[in-house]
Amino acid sequence: MQTSPFLGELIGTMVLLFLGDGVVANVVLRQTKGEASGWIVITTGWAFAVTMGVFVAKAFGSIDAHLNPAVTIAFAVAKNEYGQVIPYITAQLIGALLGAGLVWLHYLPHWAVTEDKASKLAAFCNTPAIRSTGSNLISEALATMVLILGLAGISSKNLGELAIGIGPYLVGVLVWSVGLSLGGPTGYAINPARDLSPRLAHALLPIPNKGSSGWNYAWIPVLGPLIGAVIGGVLIRWFAL
Amino acid sequence: MQTSPFLGELIGTMVLLFLGDGVVANVVLRQTKGEASGWIVITTGWAFAVTMGVFVAKAFGSIDAHLNPAVTIAFAVAKNEYGQVIPYITAQLIGALLGAGLVWLHYLPHWAVTEDKASKLAAFCNTPAIRSTGSNLISEALATMVLILGLAGISSKNLGELAIGIGPYLVGVLVWSVGLSLGGPTGYAINPARDLSPRLAHALLPIPNKGSSGWNYAWIPVLGPLIGAVIGGVLIRWFAL
Amino acid sequence: MQTSPFLGELIGTMVLLFLGDGVVANVVLRQTKGEASGWIVITTGWAFAVTMGVFVAKAFGSIDAHLNPAVTIAFAVAKNEYGQVIPYITAQLIGALLGAGLVWLHYLPHWAVTEDKASKLAAFCNTPAIRSTGSNLISEALATMVLILGLAGISSKNLGELAIGIGPYLVGVLVWSVGLSLGGPTGYAINPARDLSPRLAHALLPIPNKGSSGWNYAWIPVLGPLIGAVIGGVLIRWFAL
Amino acid sequence: MQTSPFLGELIGTMVLLFLGDGVVANVVLRQTKGEASGWIVITTGWAFAVTMGVFVAKAFGSIDAHLNPAVTIAFAVAKNEYGQVIPYITAQLIGALLGAGLVWLHYLPHWAVTEDKASKLAAFCNTPAIRSTGSNLISEALATMVLILGLAGISSKNLGELAIGIGPYLVGVLVWSVGLSLGGPTGYAINPARDLSPRLAHALLPIPNKGSSGWNYAWIPVLGPLIGAVIGGVLIRWFAL
Repeated sequence: MQTSPFLGELIGTMVLLFLGDGVVANVVLRQTKGEASGWIVITTGWAFAVTMGVFVAKAFGSIDAHLNPAVTIAFAVAKNEYGQVIPYITAQLIGALLGAGLVWLHYLPHWAVTEDKASKLAAFCNTPAIRSTGSNLISEALATMVLILGLAGISSKNLGELAIGIGPYLVGVLVWSVGLSLGGPTGYAINPARDLSPRLAHALLPIPNKGSSGWNYAWIPVLGPLIGAVIGGVLIRWFAL
Repeated sequence: MQTSPFLGELIGTMVLLFLGDGVVANVVLRQTKGEASGWIVITTGWAFAVTMGVFVAKAFGSIDAHLNPAVTIAFAVAKNEYGQVIPYITAQLIGALLGAGLVWLHYLPHWAVTEDKASKLAAFCNTPAIRSTGSNLISEALATMVLILGLAGISSKNLGELAIGIGPYLVGVLVWSVGLSLGGPTGYAINPARDLSPRLAHALLPIPNKGSSGWNYAWIPVLGPLIGAVIGGVLIRWFAL
Repeated sequence: MQTSPFLGELIGTMVLLFLGDGVVANVVLRQTKGEASGWIVITTGWAFAVTMGVFVAKAFGSIDAHLNPAVTIAFAVAKNEYGQVIPYITAQLIGALLGAGLVWLHYLPHWAVTEDKASKLAAFCNTPAIRSTGSNLISEALATMVLILGLAGISSKNLGELAIGIGPYLVGVLVWSVGLSLGGPTGYAINPARDLSPRLAHALLPIPNKGSSGWNYAWIPVLGPLIGAVIGGVLIRWFAL
Repeated sequence: MQTSPFLGELIGTMVLLFLGDGVVANVVLRQTKGEASGWIVITTGWAFAVTMGVFVAKAFGSIDAHLNPAVTIAFAVAKNEYGQVIPYITAQLIGALLGAGLVWLHYLPHWAVTEDKASKLAAFCNTPAIRSTGSNLISEALATMVLILGLAGISSKNLGELAIGIGPYLVGVLVWSVGLSLGGPTGYAINPARDLSPRLAHALLPIPNKGSSGWNYAWIPVLGPLIGAVIGGVLIRWFAL
């Protein structure tokens, strides 16, 4: 069979969400080995979920390994090339949905023993620490802008570098940094596919005694990261970073 | 004397288990310096147990530094070369047994002061968080598949790269990621030798007031990883990762 | 537009403070995702705040990516070249002020729900664990001296290396080390801009129910790091490190 | 002035102990910023204390950056060259003494507020979790043997590699691994200079209300690591690792 950038983005984002939502499930669901092991576990887990998502995406044919519509849009804006936006984002959304499905399957016995509905939702998608539309939107935009500038810095003048050698590790460290430092208010979606597709998975999957999928919040982790991505992309373009 | 791939696999897997089961012993046994220090300690410890196992394996003559029958089988399937499967797995099983013995020796004063029998077993091998044959098997298979795809991604097109330069560190980061994110349901054996040989060690060694060695669960951390390995190996082959 | 060393220092220090004070805000403010997640989170967050600040500084045109007046002065002393001291420090002070402002904005809903005034100040600048003028000054000087010697060691004979390749990661690890080991008495400012500008931000910004900005302590995290920097710089020069 | 291997070993070991004992002081003394932050902080701190000690040692002229009499002896045995053993160990013992002195100075206000005498001793040197002469000796020997084999693996066929490029980081990761996994029974001295010189510092320094310096245990973290070093060195030589 043939690998391809589309397949790479899809499988890479699937692995990203499987590992990323996996660590949240491990921490917030009941009776897991990592129950209640805290913010250091969640942020380290998400960091290397990104690293491994990038490595796997590359193995399956991805060239850029964005795994994130915000990254795809930021670099499209930066390069003024929009041809790959639709196929990449499509692949990312499908991959994220599959990844969330794998988390559900992987932690199957733990949904029924977890009573708290918010915890079960948290294993899929974000809920802000304090609901405040403007602030939550700003937080997601700012954190994503830092993500984009960090990617520009790591790859400086050569965005392709991010997917090779030590690059994927450094991208993971960037996400570690963003999570540790900026994840406080909203849980750092910084990736529309990371929130939207798993939220859909939460709505569709047969999870025992589940609560609301929180659709009234769903637009913020989509729009916020996109705002941050556009700002970041414009900065990269203006300054030729 | 002569180093050799067999000796390298054996010593490398011995070091892997000494460090890997060592960190569990440190966390779960009583009156250790690391008592009850949690999931971040266990997962970080296992991550770099793998890194160091790979480095030592290489020093003693290993070329591939698999240290894991699932990895050996996945790459045998991927390359359609089965000649090294039996010697490698033999070396891994012996090395893991010796490593578990070293953990017993290293933590010698702590077995008697630890009353909980499950904790003493945990320092050797896995017990699932929630016993559920189908789910446990699926979890081990999925986590191992991610391990194999991650290895393919790190080494992309050149599997030998894993044992040199920064490779062993990245393999450790991969195991960190798998542990943090997917270790919740079963404790992530993802390696038949990691569970089977230490379980045998638990059964054989004179551990004060020990309980069952949990043999009724023993087949799952063998079969699950092998299923994941074959799926991963087939994917590598099909897609020429 | 044009990138430049001045802009690079400014934006890099802005990102440094946004991420660095961000992790403190996440840990000490109330109702954040990372509330009370402890010293490992704070030190890891600051470590990679530095790494990412260096990467972003470089992308915006910084050549040295000091992000710290103490580092600028240490290397000026080491090289006996003082031409860039004033512009660099100016950029760093402005960048740090902007970064602290971003932390205020990013964590906007959390200031009102945090009652403790010392916690709100801690998200901006340092307060010593035990106030003791001489000891606090010595601690800041010693920690900064180790920072400078560590930078000399990482870049050995080639100070420019710090901003390229794996260099920014190793600089982050250095700051991780200094924070974990030497941050106990004063919270490791080790950077006059890191403390002074955010303290000013705390004084200026409309933070609900804020307390004193602690100006009576403000000179110590300025003078202490400068003393350490000069000693470090002299050692580098004397020994041609 | 002139850098030299002797000066490099001395300054490097001073930095190693300042950072290494520093992190213990931060965790075990009262009213520090890192009070009671646990095993992950201690082991991460010691890991990168080694990394930074190696970098600084190299900057000051060290070629090998052993910072540890056990490492010096292991490689002397491995290479059958004993000429540098006495000067290196002398430098290491002096450097460790100075480093412990710096910890005392850096944490000066915290000794008086810490009532527990064992905690004050722990900031200098090791006390076993459970006192058991034979077992403690075996634990120190085994952990040191793993350290030596890990160094051999990292540097494979080229021991000088440890002090350049990514080498010092990997050596830190090795010490992280040994600490997390094997530090449980004795606190992992794995370095005679790391225990003996700081113990002397504890005995000599004016620490308020200090207890015994535990001299009856002092020979174990000297002899144990030396046994492990000789075994490791012999293995390296026999197998030409």
